[in-house]
Amino acid sequence: MIQRPRGTRDLLPEDMARRRSVEKVMLDTALRFGFGEVCTPMFEELELFTMKSGQGVIGEIYNFKDKGGRDLALRPELTAAVIRLYANNMQDAPKPIKVFYFGECFRYERPQKGRYREFRQFGAEIIGGDEVATNIEIVSLALEIISGLGLKGQGIRIGFLDILRILFEEIGVGRNDQGPFMTLIDKGDLDGLAKLFEERGLIGQVTDIILKVAATKGKEVIQKARDLLRDRSKCLDALDKLEAILNGIRSSALPGTEDVEVDLGIARGLDYYSGMVFEVDISDLGAEKQVCGGGAYALTELFGLEATNSTGFAMGVDRLILAIEQQGILGPMKGPTAYVIPFKGTEERAREVVSELRSAGVPTDLDLSGRSLSKNLKYAASIRALFAIILGQKELEKGVVTVRDLDSGDQTEVPLGDIIGYFKDK
Amino acid sequence: MIQRPRGTRDLLPEDMARRRSVEKVMLDTALRFGFGEVCTPMFEELELFTMKSGQGVIGEIYNFKDKGGRDLALRPELTAAVIRLYANNMQDAPKPIKVFYFGECFRYERPQKGRYREFRQFGAEIIGGDEVATNIEIVSLALEIISGLGLKGQGIRIGFLDILRILFEEIGVGRNDQGPFMTLIDKGDLDGLAKLFEERGLIGQVTDIILKVAATKGKEVIQKARDLLRDRSKCLDALDKLEAILNGIRSSALPGTEDVEVDLGIARGLDYYSGMVFEVDISDLGAEKQVCGGGAYALTELFGLEATNSTGFAMGVDRLILAIEQQGILGPMKGPTAYVIPFKGTEERAREVVSELRSAGVPTDLDLSGRSLSKNLKYAASIRALFAIILGQKELEKGVVTVRDLDSGDQTEVPLGDIIGYFKDK
Repeated sequence: MIQRPRGTRDLLPEDMARRRSVEKVMLDTALRFGFGEVCTPMFEELELFTMKSGQGVIGEIYNFKDKGGRDLALRPELTAAVIRLYANNMQDAPKPIKVFYFGECFRYERPQKGRYREFRQFGAEIIGGDEVATNIEIVSLALEIISGLGLKGQGIRIGFLDILRILFEEIGVGRNDQGPFMTLIDKGDLDGLAKLFEERGLIGQVTDIILKVAATKGKEVIQKARDLLRDRSKCLDALDKLEAILNGIRSSALPGTEDVEVDLGIARGLDYYSGMVFEVDISDLGAEKQVCGGGAYALTELFGLEATNSTGFAMGVDRLILAIEQQGILGPMKGPTAYVIPFKGTEERAREVVSELRSAGVPTDLDLSGRSLSKNLKYAASIRALFAIILGQKELEKGVVTVRDLDSGDQTEVPLGDIIGYFKDK
Repeated sequence: MIQRPRGTRDLLPEDMARRRSVEKVMLDTALRFGFGEVCTPMFEELELFTMKSGQGVIGEIYNFKDKGGRDLALRPELTAAVIRLYANNMQDAPKPIKVFYFGECFRYERPQKGRYREFRQFGAEIIGGDEVATNIEIVSLALEIISGLGLKGQGIRIGFLDILRILFEEIGVGRNDQGPFMTLIDKGDLDGLAKLFEERGLIGQVTDIILKVAATKGKEVIQKARDLLRDRSKCLDALDKLEAILNGIRSSALPGTEDVEVDLGIARGLDYYSGMVFEVDISDLGAEKQVCGGGAYALTELFGLEATNSTGFAMGVDRLILAIEQQGILGPMKGPTAYVIPFKGTEERAREVVSELRSAGVPTDLDLSGRSLSKNLKYAASIRALFAIILGQKELEKGVVTVRDLDSGDQTEVPLGDIIGYFKDK
């Protein structure tokens, strides 16, 4: 039998009910923050991703030629696509532009727990505006969503990537050569970093500072970092900005903001990040604990546009659902409120009852198989309906229905004219 | 500059607000009808589509090999994928199974107005249950959604494909050879059909009946069809079922059901349809006027499962949005309720006001650029905010904010402690 492709998933009604409830929090919060939703195609010109991440990215993505010979790729992430959307459609819109999006992304990698080849992301971007103010706004949106989901135990870490980039420049490692170092920092592998410095003959005072900066982490470490970087005015400027962002986030008094940590060792995976960077982990999730990551980046230049301050984040919808399941935040999915069971000769009246209830907004299902009462009650229980509405000939003659509470088994007669009133508040 | 791929679209905030409001009607209605949402991968094994539609389909779809050499295809439609989901995951669930879905579909065809290479569909399927009851339910869901969208002028046509299939069998044209005939019927090209009969040497009494059946269309034509098919008991059975389905739909008293027409010339494009078929057109849309199509089909057999009564439909989300725009049903998109403008020294208090308003559910934006008052007011108007909240030093000292109605220009002072109450009902 044909199966779904390797690394992908089918989502059943219970899964989708969870996804809907998580995405409702994201959608409502983003709209409340004054962000507007956008949507880009599922595939893009391959070049959009290679120009950003180099040819190496091709090994990890789904790329193909279409029937017109175009090189296309299923999008591996959405920031580049949203910046293309901005460059194509919104260049002249008043800034800042605040947008958010939901969408599937695709990576050809080994499937494992919590890691799929097709996965869903929520994200937001601000293009233009003041660097400190927009970063406060973007981090606040991410934190408000995570707290709105009811999650607990999240670790929020904020850094400023410019500091490391400035120090690497000092030892002659330019922007395009920082990748291998940043990868080690991103993994927290400082021994590996020290070894790499040694291999490259870079050992010295500055590499010591880099190792110390990469290890600088905690709630009150900005002064420590200032001491470490005291002779470097650009680094101190970066720390000033980081402190202003931190103060802004904390003054919003969102739950969880008191736990925000500074982490100067956040390097992010991608080359285009520059200023503030941040990550949110949910420790319950183990190896795949990062549920949100983002920061300031420089991408508009890739489109030949002038450099524009931009910042954003992406969240893994699937991982957040996993976290919510593990923390037991969502109860089991509810079925329809009412399940209507007609008998021979009452089918037409039963359909009218169904229509009335549905028009009144009461989620209602009905027998579509012409089954016996006992089989219908079993089916109604299996779809987790709350009440069965039984409409036999006897009931029809009396002008009533029998309403059975499928949890307690209690039955009561309700006049046909009062059904909507009876169910309105159930 | 890199553009979006040919035949695809970027959706901007105004487009997405429309999509959201259309999809909310679909989602809420489907849940109220007791359907559960499912989601399948964006791509499937290519074989899923060729086994259903033949190798010919490959010319019209996006197919490719992944890095593991698998033949995959971006899904051109969702019914086959949902039946695969059923076969893989839900075979043992109590029947009928009622599911719905939203998703992008992809066809490699020449882009034209209202026709894109990536397009979005909403659809629903019922697997199992009684043939008449499930078809009433599926058509009712489609009609309730279309009337819930506020659309006017829709033409709803219902047919029963078995009748044509039986007649074709009579003249020796088996199920697998009916394609070219059905295509002409689907286009309403009965002259072409007569010509094809002639070419194939099939002219006779039965082909006359086929031509008449294909032209049988109108509100009260079932008796006429009975006369035409009076010696054919299987055809008469089909007409009985069609009449029972029509009566069931009309008894639901949904707006629009009085206009439902019988159309025995509905052939649908795809081979797997068998019993009831239906289509909904919105005539305002011109050439691309069909917004919904569906019917009963036989697909479970393709998975080696026993034949199961199944019925469903798909709707073009994009075309329905187009129809809604043409009928002027949705007004322009609203911006945030409040746009907060701080001055030097009031930034922190302004952020608190923003947080309070957002926590109270009031959509609120704020200055992220440190602009002058007049530039801020211009920006607030451009994002269609309803009110500006101005918080200068003077206001802060007095413990108030100035609220400016951006439509009328009226200004009023509101105490800082009363802001939420003031905006709660705006």
